[in-house]
Amino acid sequence: MTGRVVKQERAVRTRAALLHAAAETFAEYGFAGTTVSRIAERAGLTLGALYFHFKSKEELARLIVTGQPELVVPQLDSQGLQHAVDLTLTWAHQLLDDPVLRAGARLVMDQELFIKPSVNSYRQWTGILLDDFEQARRRRELRADVDTEAYVRLIVGSCTGAQIHTQLETSHRDLPARVEEMWRCLLPALAVPSVARKVRFGEERARVASS
Amino acid sequence: MTGRVVKQERAVRTRAALLHAAAETFAEYGFAGTTVSRIAERAGLTLGALYFHFKSKEELARLIVTGQPELVVPQLDSQGLQHAVDLTLTWAHQLLDDPVLRAGARLVMDQELFIKPSVNSYRQWTGILLDDFEQARRRRELRADVDTEAYVRLIVGSCTGAQIHTQLETSHRDLPARVEEMWRCLLPALAVPSVARKVRFGEERARVASS
Repeated sequence: MTGRVVKQERAVRTRAALLHAAAETFAEYGFAGTTVSRIAERAGLTLGALYFHFKSKEELARLIVTGQPELVVPQLDSQGLQHAVDLTLTWAHQLLDDPVLRAGARLVMDQELFIKPSVNSYRQWTGILLDDFEQARRRRELRADVDTEAYVRLIVGSCTGAQIHTQLETSHRDLPARVEEMWRCLLPALAVPSVARKVRFGEERARVASS
Repeated sequence: MTGRVVKQERAVRTRAALLHAAAETFAEYGFAGTTVSRIAERAGLTLGALYFHFKSKEELARLIVTGQPELVVPQLDSQGLQHAVDLTLTWAHQLLDDPVLRAGARLVMDQELFIKPSVNSYRQWTGILLDDFEQARRRRELRADVDTEAYVRLIVGSCTGAQIHTQLETSHRDLPARVEEMWRCLLPALAVPSVARKVRFGEERARVASS
């Protein structure tokens, strides 16, 4: 291996370690309570190393928040409504351990400080779920008069609220159960009965694809 | 009027001015960004005056968060599901202008720093809405198999989420519309059809009782 390749690999590892430390720090202290020094210290690196890779605390927060959806990849293949269910269940389970998702959750109210409204996490997730709902519509899974945008806004809002309340009550431990409960409340209004009966919620739906 | 009465009235006014200033400061800067000095300064009072009335920033935050439900009193009399609808609509409209409700919204994620889990705002609101749902059940407004606790958790969670997202997107301006939309999504699953048709959402439902 040449010296240059070693250097590049080291740079990639350093960058990843800083992002990981940033996520843990944001998850623990929130945006206001996090400083670049705290992040560098947690990564066991210097402030110089941090500023070599990232411009600011704001840039780190932005990368963490916008990077959430690509982390949430259900292991099982599915389509339409079942894919929307799998996505939210996978997110809920994964949030229990993943510092990036925990940080994203903690930063949700502070996004205006470091992210453009057009790409905030609310817009990201509604866009993704709307695709699932459009597919569900094409697959004739939805009741005829369902306002898909209204339901998607309700689902994303309800996941945000459940995340906040379960954080207060059980350090998120109840989040997967709350997400399943949300779907059980909504499916009778949303889905044609034959589809509503077939939607699955078992733990296998919530497993992340190994990368 | 005796000197003592004048003094007592002044104390009541000072206390109210401090609470109002605290609410505005929490709404603007969040829990971490608020200091007692900032609150006293906004109220045009001394730190000594603040500490005469309140022990700490934590006490002020606690009083503001726990004082929310008694502020939200719909002008129109209603029962059961319609009362639950009126309560959430009134909250949503009132939050646009009321610094105590705006502060409560901003402090929702920080509650563990100053409030016991048993009385956090999530517990308060689920308790209040559960009473409405129990009444709705007695009035035969609900479908037979409705899990009232699940729906109430979903409604409170969805209001919290909508509050956060509309803050990001429109400084809460869309919150009343989002709350109405939530009910329109849920009523077909929740209420017997004759009741679902009769629920009203007009602006008169959202007016606060004059005190």
